[in-house]
Formats: sequence, C-alpha cells, structure tokens
Amino acid sequence: MNRKQLFQEIQKKKSFLCIGLDTDIEKIPQHLLQMEDPVFEFNKAIVDATHHLTVAYKPNLAFYEANGPKGWESLAKTVAHIRETDPNIFLIADAKRGDIGNTSAMYAKTFFETYDFDAVTLAPYMGLDTVAPFLSYDGKWSVVLALTSNKSAADFQYLTDNKSGDRLFESVLKTGQIWGNTDQIMFVVGATKAEALQQIRQIAPDSFLLVPGIGAQGGSLEEVSNYGMNDHCGLLVNSSRGIIFASKGEDFAEKAAESAGVLQKEMEKHLQEKGLI
Amino acid sequence: MNRKQLFQEIQKKKSFLCIGLDTDIEKIPQHLLQMEDPVFEFNKAIVDATHHLTVAYKPNLAFYEANGPKGWESLAKTVAHIRETDPNIFLIADAKRGDIGNTSAMYAKTFFETYDFDAVTLAPYMGLDTVAPFLSYDGKWSVVLALTSNKSAADFQYLTDNKSGDRLFESVLKTGQIWGNTDQIMFVVGATKAEALQQIRQIAPDSFLLVPGIGAQGGSLEEVSNYGMNDHCGLLVNSSRGIIFASKGEDFAEKAAESAGVLQKEMEKHLQEKGLI
Repeated sequence: MNRKQLFQEIQKKKSFLCIGLDTDIEKIPQHLLQMEDPVFEFNKAIVDATHHLTVAYKPNLAFYEANGPKGWESLAKTVAHIRETDPNIFLIADAKRGDIGNTSAMYAKTFFETYDFDAVTLAPYMGLDTVAPFLSYDGKWSVVLALTSNKSAADFQYLTDNKSGDRLFESVLKTGQIWGNTDQIMFVVGATKAEALQQIRQIAPDSFLLVPGIGAQGGSLEEVSNYGMNDHCGLLVNSSRGIIFASKGEDFAEKAAESAGVLQKEMEKHLQEKGLI
Repeated sequence: MNRKQLFQEIQKKKSFLCIGLDTDIEKIPQHLLQMEDPVFEFNKAIVDATHHLTVAYKPNLAFYEANGPKGWESLAKTVAHIRETDPNIFLIADAKRGDIGNTSAMYAKTFFETYDFDAVTLAPYMGLDTVAPFLSYDGKWSVVLALTSNKSAADFQYLTDNKSGDRLFESVLKTGQIWGNTDQIMFVVGATKAEALQQIRQIAPDSFLLVPGIGAQGGSLEEVSNYGMNDHCGLLVNSSRGIIFASKGEDFAEKAAESAGVLQKEMEKHLQEKGLI
C-alpha cells in the first residue's frame, strides 16, 4: 500500500484512526479465558466491531511475545482475521526492532513474509542498516521512531548536534527522509502540542506520522489534527487501551466500537475542516 | 548472576567467549532438515560440543522469529537445553528491544520469565523508560547498545552534543551507568580498535562490554583484550558464524568446537597475561 492508497482509505472511512492491539491477557474479560485462544478471540471481536471505523491496527508485539510460542499463534491468527475481514486495513507490527545486516533482513522477512504486515516500527539507533532491508519490499513501510512521548525521551532525543544544530529527533526526521521516500518511511511522533508539531511539519511536510498518545496518554486530537495534518492527511493517530479496554465486561467489543466511533466522528470533522473529504 | 559470578565463570573456563546462535535454517547442514525441529537439533549439537569453551550463548532472536511460532519453540527448547547442560552459562537474548511503560515491562517478562534468559540487548533511543522494568529483576542484566560496529552507526551515534561535548554513544555510556550498577548494565561496544577501546574504558572502566565483531566482522581479539580488559575481565567477546557455521557438513559441531577452542586458547593467554587466572 502506498501513500496515495492509504489516503484513499482515510477518505473512504473518514478516519485516520489506528487501533493498538495491546492485548494484555491479564486485562481481557474473564469469560474469554475459558476459550482455547483468549487473546485471538478478544482481537477477533474487537476487529469485527471496529474495522469500519479504523484504517489501521497495530498489534503491540510485547503482549504476544510474553505468552511464549502460543502468543505468536494468536498474532498470526489475528493478522489472518484482519486480512479476511478487510484487505485494505493497514497493518503495523509495533515491534521497534533495530539491528543490522543479515539480522535486520531476518526481521524484515519475519514481518513482511512470515506474517503479512504492511509496516513495522523500527528504532533508528544503528542508522540506515536497520531500515535498509525493509525498504527492499515494494509497498511496505518502515515506521521510524523519531520523537517519543515518554518522559525519558529527553535522555537522548533532545541532545543537540553541535554541527547541524539539530536535536537528535530532528536528525532522525531529516536523515530518514533521505533513506527512503514518503511511500516507504513514516515516523513515530509522540508530540501532541501545537509548537512541536509545527516544527516537525517544517522538517517533514509530506511524511505520514504515526502519533500515539491520544486517550490513555492524554494527547489532544484537535491539536494533532490542526497542526499535524497535511494534504494527504499524513496522520495515523493511535489509541490502544482507551478503545480495547473501554469495558471489562461481556460488552467489551460494543464499548470498544463506541469509543472508536467517538474518535472517528471527531476525525471526520477535522478532515472536513481541512477540505480533505 | 552478578558481575563477580560472571568473572568466576570466566576464570573457571579460561574463556570470555560468547557464542552467537544466529541459527539460520537456510545455512544449517542438510541432514538436519529431516528432523522435527532442525534449528533446535543444530543448537543442541553446538551446545553439547562447545559449552566447556564458552561462558555465554547469545541466540539472535531474528533467526527464530522468522520461522514463525515454531521458531519460538526452537528457542524455548534451546534455552532449556543450555540450562540443563550447564546452569552457569550466561544466556543473552539478542533482541534489541526498546519500548516504554507497560510494553517494556512485557518485554522484560518475556525474556526473564517466559524464557529464562540472564540478559537482553536493549536499544537506548527512548531512554531510561526502556531499561527500567528490566532493572527490577534481581541478578538479571540489560545489555545496552552504545557503539555498534556497522557502517551506518555513524548516522547518529557519532553526533556530538553541543552541551557536554559527548558523542551520542558516549552519552549512552555515561547515562547508562547512572541507570543501573555494574551488576545490572553492560554495554554493546562494537569497537575493536585500540584508540576507541581506550576512550570507552575511560568512560566505563568497570562495566562489562559485549563485543561483537570477532571473526566474521573482522575484529582483532588481541586489541580487544589489550585495551578492553579490566580487573574483572569485563569482556564478553562474541563470535557467531565463525563458530557455528565453521563446517556445513555432518562434522559441523566438531568443527564449531575447534573454532571455539582456538578463540578460547587465545583468550586464556590474554587472561594469563593480565594476571586474571
């Protein structure tokens, strides 16, 4: 899927929502635990209830890995179910991998061949070598960590290079755009404040940004839309717990759809205001 | 396992070798492919032939993940077999994970509870939040990427902070030592040149360093030993392909032991020269 196709899906669904499948087996409704694969059953119900409201799903790999080999079975079944339900959904493996050479090539094989993802989140610390093998897959995306929303992002991401004057996350945004084009690279930007988003859009005007931090992490969808949107929308805004754990009862999927629907409606309004739908 | 215990193992085995289990199913001997779990059978034979020569094994997760859920079964069986063969082996998950909050906690659970590793490689881009959950496990280690040996390490790791004058990898070495003590944190240092190792030892005199790049990546064990060793040895030197793929025939385990033995003998000499055994 290229940037234009992703934008078309956003226009069609009037949504730039990404639902994070951070499916913690400790937090899913009790009644699912009797089933053979509770994590998959949970995801299946969430997908069935929300796929018309979202353009992307983002399974968070840690929650699958923690369950051992069985966790990867749940992941594989989830990916297959999403593909069957809606072949145009953009599927992001939130894996934050980062390695080099043949190891990096193996990670690309994992997420683009063994599992049928469209995109993978990658950590930029080791530079281009981390991303290069992912770029060789046509229509697939590398989602590079640039600015993250956590407190200790400041440990390194704000260090200012004495040659360029760029902070580290700005160097990543600039260098990442050299590594690949806007059909191949998007960036994780955990910024929800107007000023930061404006600065980032100056550096990366055309790139898609994956923005976490709406909902549980407290960001404002309005500011993100006002200052982050470009002429292809250019935003995927993620919400995880605020949607998937909206209820802990048997109505969890219904309540997830309600929460996703609230965000979709707000997104529709922002897309209209920008004249994109 | 703490730093002192790791040093005792090094003294006992006269080796600071780490064998990287980068078990690529495309590269293992043909005759294993008929078996139910060829990757495990390969690892088992390698471990049985080399465990007396090495203080650590480092499965490279990408090679297991690429095989789907079955790959994680191979990994689990490998970990169990190493534990049964030699309970004092230091087991590193080369996973290069890096996330925050409850996701990072899930990764710590994965590698320290679901699988019984002693240590995990972690990417520092998101700061302390990535490492913090791993530090709460007593006797377990975070192996933080500092300086890597690949060409594009220069993309970001050499950027110089205009306040401290430190390059990014130097900031990581300094900050990492504040995050945890020398029984909790070690660093990946892909330096095999005298000058770089001397500089790193000035910044992190007491820390263990995990040094890749001997063998396939062309580093010199002599320079690493001369300039990187401290009074607790402080080095784990990794070799992967040079050992495990020393032969592609039925004698692969025997030849792996020969290759590991050559490195162990050289390490023994360096430990003697430094008066550590």
